[in-house]
Amino acid sequence: MTHKFGIAIHGGAGTILRSSLTPEREKLYKDALHTALTAGYSVLTAGGSSLDAVETAIRSLEDCPLFNAGRGAVFNSAGKHEMDASIMFGKNLGAGAVGLINNVKNPIALARKIMENTSHVFVCGEGAEEYAKAFGLEMADDAYFYDEFRYQQWQQSHIAGGAFLDHNLQSANASDEKKFGTVGAVALDKDGNLAAGTSTGGMTNKNPGRLGDSAVIGAGTYANNNTCAISCTGHGELFIRAVVGHDVSALIEYKNLSLAEACHEVVMKKLVQIEGEGGLIAIDKHGNIELPFNSEGMYRAMKSSDGREVVAIYK
Amino acid sequence: MTHKFGIAIHGGAGTILRSSLTPEREKLYKDALHTALTAGYSVLTAGGSSLDAVETAIRSLEDCPLFNAGRGAVFNSAGKHEMDASIMFGKNLGAGAVGLINNVKNPIALARKIMENTSHVFVCGEGAEEYAKAFGLEMADDAYFYDEFRYQQWQQSHIAGGAFLDHNLQSANASDEKKFGTVGAVALDKDGNLAAGTSTGGMTNKNPGRLGDSAVIGAGTYANNNTCAISCTGHGELFIRAVVGHDVSALIEYKNLSLAEACHEVVMKKLVQIEGEGGLIAIDKHGNIELPFNSEGMYRAMKSSDGREVVAIYK
Repeated sequence: MTHKFGIAIHGGAGTILRSSLTPEREKLYKDALHTALTAGYSVLTAGGSSLDAVETAIRSLEDCPLFNAGRGAVFNSAGKHEMDASIMFGKNLGAGAVGLINNVKNPIALARKIMENTSHVFVCGEGAEEYAKAFGLEMADDAYFYDEFRYQQWQQSHIAGGAFLDHNLQSANASDEKKFGTVGAVALDKDGNLAAGTSTGGMTNKNPGRLGDSAVIGAGTYANNNTCAISCTGHGELFIRAVVGHDVSALIEYKNLSLAEACHEVVMKKLVQIEGEGGLIAIDKHGNIELPFNSEGMYRAMKSSDGREVVAIYK
Repeated sequence: MTHKFGIAIHGGAGTILRSSLTPEREKLYKDALHTALTAGYSVLTAGGSSLDAVETAIRSLEDCPLFNAGRGAVFNSAGKHEMDASIMFGKNLGAGAVGLINNVKNPIALARKIMENTSHVFVCGEGAEEYAKAFGLEMADDAYFYDEFRYQQWQQSHIAGGAFLDHNLQSANASDEKKFGTVGAVALDKDGNLAAGTSTGGMTNKNPGRLGDSAVIGAGTYANNNTCAISCTGHGELFIRAVVGHDVSALIEYKNLSLAEACHEVVMKKLVQIEGEGGLIAIDKHGNIELPFNSEGMYRAMKSSDGREVVAIYK
């Protein structure tokens, strides 16, 4: 018997209003989501693993300059890119995460190498880049990551946000806290194995060294064959404090909630209570898929073996 | 009515055999644990917050060269110190974490500043050190962190472990995987607020950039007034994958386990299944304290307002 299988992806959540996207730009985003979705789903159809499907879909989103991950990563307050990514396999609770990396073309591929080929789970900065080179992963120079739109966005934010260390150190990013451009994917394969992955360029004009939930196993990324696979996007600090990915899983495993109930509890109640804006994508071991968000919009798509397919942006 | 209150601390778990410690050295460790315990407990007796008690106890352990945190931090494979710390307050789920920092005398104090005085939760490397300087925290030069024993330990490990990047990248730290010298504290104050904190120098001869669970909210550190406060010590990679801190909390909140049952389930069953050696300290909202570990020993101590006091090392 073949299991039901499926995949869901996201390209970030936040204040995405219909009025702010031209029809042409909306089509660009939807086409990019569809391309990544199809690439990941094809892996599953061919009998590939959920890990391969997740990595394939995220690579496609990382290679697209529209999303804040890989090629389209935003600039931090120092005018540099610092990218984070993580991946987890539900079969054995294997996990890999990287943070604050530069010049690695596909951060999700490095996270997977950390998981599969080292004794570590979480490696940051130059140490992680050394691994990327040692593993022969494709590197890319700064020009590859340069995007005129992101640069202008950073310049505006940098001017509006003031100096790196101001008096209370709180408001530097205030003008940009509503821009969450993470990407992610979750999948269930024909063998019944779940996987999840997330990749991001972080917040525009963020301080150097800041990590969000995308690099944190249990928060932005979690997968467990007993329950579900989760990838988050939103205000990372709140998602870390709420341990979002593992909380959804625990509500299913320990409180017997359905995937839909667990997602609703975490995204629409617990996160809202602490003003944690954003959303997540989730698939459970039965192949159910949820795409909840408490923000204005979330770039999202899903496709499952029962014939359902969604590509959407707004509520 | 005054709540029951209490504190527990640890100074690391691992292969600590009675035969490997002279009576003199055992006394040194127990005295240091007692000093930190008393310092933290005094804060609680005076009506101070659990956060202050946790920070006070951990600062004491960080200032002691016997433990692998702060002054006694081990050397990484590059012969440098890279310290991680995190803190969480159960009242509001506030959290702060720092990773891969040098020359900050008390990493736990920086984690708390990140929590209380910035919009971030998790900051690593030089970006975190910039915060330490901006906040006026006490810095210390390399000589402060130099310890002849740690240096010899690193030299032996460095020689035994071979080059930084060997063929499979897996075995470099094999000879040192049983040395877990993290420190941590958990407390419940008279107001019924829980807090947890953890601080570490990581694994001897670890690769640069490697983070363990001590920097990861939800894994090495977690506090929630609905349930309990947890600080872990052990093989960090496994503790991250098991999301240990939040898992203990979720078993109490969603499955109605007692603190003792939840700790047993996670430390003695789930972690053992994935060969996750180590332990944790835990206090729940009722003031119950547990100090479970699945390794040979764990430097540990606890004191509560009902008169119980423990300072112990072996099983």
